[in-house]
Amino acid sequence: MSDVRTRTSKLRVEAVSVSIDGFVAGPGQDREHPLGVGGPALFGWFFPTRTWQAMHGQPDQGETGVDDDAAARGFENIGAWILGRNMFGPIRGPWPDDDWKGWWGDEPPYHVPVFVLTHHARAPLEMKGGTVFHFVTGGMRAALARAREAAGGRDVRVGGGASTIRQFVRAGLVDELRLTISPVLLGRGEPLFQGLDLPALGYECIAHVPGKRAVAHVTLRRRD
Amino acid sequence: MSDVRTRTSKLRVEAVSVSIDGFVAGPGQDREHPLGVGGPALFGWFFPTRTWQAMHGQPDQGETGVDDDAAARGFENIGAWILGRNMFGPIRGPWPDDDWKGWWGDEPPYHVPVFVLTHHARAPLEMKGGTVFHFVTGGMRAALARAREAAGGRDVRVGGGASTIRQFVRAGLVDELRLTISPVLLGRGEPLFQGLDLPALGYECIAHVPGKRAVAHVTLRRRD
Repeated sequence: MSDVRTRTSKLRVEAVSVSIDGFVAGPGQDREHPLGVGGPALFGWFFPTRTWQAMHGQPDQGETGVDDDAAARGFENIGAWILGRNMFGPIRGPWPDDDWKGWWGDEPPYHVPVFVLTHHARAPLEMKGGTVFHFVTGGMRAALARAREAAGGRDVRVGGGASTIRQFVRAGLVDELRLTISPVLLGRGEPLFQGLDLPALGYECIAHVPGKRAVAHVTLRRRD
Repeated sequence: MSDVRTRTSKLRVEAVSVSIDGFVAGPGQDREHPLGVGGPALFGWFFPTRTWQAMHGQPDQGETGVDDDAAARGFENIGAWILGRNMFGPIRGPWPDDDWKGWWGDEPPYHVPVFVLTHHARAPLEMKGGTVFHFVTGGMRAALARAREAAGGRDVRVGGGASTIRQFVRAGLVDELRLTISPVLLGRGEPLFQGLDLPALGYECIAHVPGKRAVAHVTLRRRD
């Protein structure tokens, strides 16, 4: 209890992989390319980690160390998530039916309520393992209010994609961003920094840790 | 001689410091701010190196190691430089007189011919220590032809700024780019990657070395 009262619930962006040229996903996202064409190369550091392996049914496999620390930290003390519509799936416009249930199979790796930003209403979707997808049509602040309430004092994580992250950052709502700069060029795709004047929004780089596979884990924090 | 014949003269971009959000200089470049406002923070890794100290009259001081290696490499086997007008100085438009002789004092750190891109003709400027500034009004390819001839088989370095680098990269003329990603946010200024589809232009990241002051040295190379 004291933990909940002394600590403010934060809005966090975690483990976002960025190419050297500033993209967080490749172009041409569709059902076969959830990260866009070329996008998976951004996650070369993430797939071997114990955290990712455990998320995919291999709990005792995978590497520990600095990269796994960055992956695992993203799930610590998270009570709810917010996702953009395109991160939930490749369908655009009205939902044709209720068939699409996310990229992640029957048991998504969230295990808490997940609020999906969309212009098109849809009934909540309860999945195995504690994940419930709620579809929010009232915009960014409505989603955040519901996520904070659901999180019960724990933090809320903005999962992506790029435009959703930019929207929350531009509104000054994100407290911390943890990025992993990957040794990859994408050339096209979803840019993270475009149109964001991060210092003017109060952000500074407070930590920088080299990872194992030629990546750099950086932490940006907004000054209070 | 065999060295000159077996080795093709390369066009290289070296030791360019990039902020996490993709800027290589801050906004508002002027006589007091040659790197733009906030720009010097990009070079926190460079100033302590033995190479930089030696360039500024302190030959036996400064640090060696991975950061100094990156700085020193940028001067190895360079027979000529190409600079954009704005990297040579803060004056825009026609030269009012011959007073401005660059940011670097009587003895600039080049010690070889330097070709400055400009729309305004000016007589060559011979400085102490072997640097001669030539002013080229015929454009990028004319400057490159003259620089290659002056370099006599050695490599040519494009020194900057951002728009000059982008111009040479976009034309497919640059063989290698070495960038240093600095743990700094600038928010505004001179973007390096904007409008450059580096993979489409044939570039890939071939090396990534963590530096001492929370930087990452990356090498991009164009496939032949």
